[in-house]
Amino acid sequence: MKTRDCYAVIFSSRQSSDTEGYDDMAQRMKELAAQQPGYLGIEATRDSNGFGITISYWKSQEAIRAWKANAEHLIAQKNGRERWYASYNLRVCHVEYEYSHPATGEAP
Amino acid sequence: MKTRDCYAVIFSSRQSSDTEGYDDMAQRMKELAAQQPGYLGIEATRDSNGFGITISYWKSQEAIRAWKANAEHLIAQKNGRERWYASYNLRVCHVEYEYSHPATGEAP
Repeated sequence: MKTRDCYAVIFSSRQSSDTEGYDDMAQRMKELAAQQPGYLGIEATRDSNGFGITISYWKSQEAIRAWKANAEHLIAQKNGRERWYASYNLRVCHVEYEYSHPATGEAP
Repeated sequence: MKTRDCYAVIFSSRQSSDTEGYDDMAQRMKELAAQQPGYLGIEATRDSNGFGITISYWKSQEAIRAWKANAEHLIAQKNGRERWYASYNLRVCHVEYEYSHPATGEAP
């Protein structure tokens, strides 16, 4: 069991019928997030019904706030609300403990 | 923004080539979890490459420990390690804050 002190942003979303430009934006946001201070990693998956979960991991809540306020990310958030997502939930969480299988696997 | 005091268990996994019985187990575990004290909800998705994320929400860490120790769940965990999952990460997190779009949406 690892006890790395970090934060997770859980973003669960249901896509709307308007998916134009979505994949490009999602890929760009992954690349941009990875360049931010305090970024630790990302996990993302979406099923064939358009329900997806993306979890990004960060060293601190300050790093999360800075990423939320990133100019290019703000545009993506606005387009997300207006076009790409029928609904979403976002939760900022503190990782209390974690473990993996196989036990030697590094996460995420 | 809501500030409900609760915990999230993030379970991210990559399936092995042995998927026999997996879907039945996953469905049964969802039903069983929903019967546990302190259960708040679940979100789950898996893509066509076999990578999935399941997040269950709980009122307390005690509720999470009790669910982890559930007899039928223990068997599923053992089969998961030995057969169904090539790898997984599990993280127990405290939800610091959350918000949703549309803002009236209840979560999860």
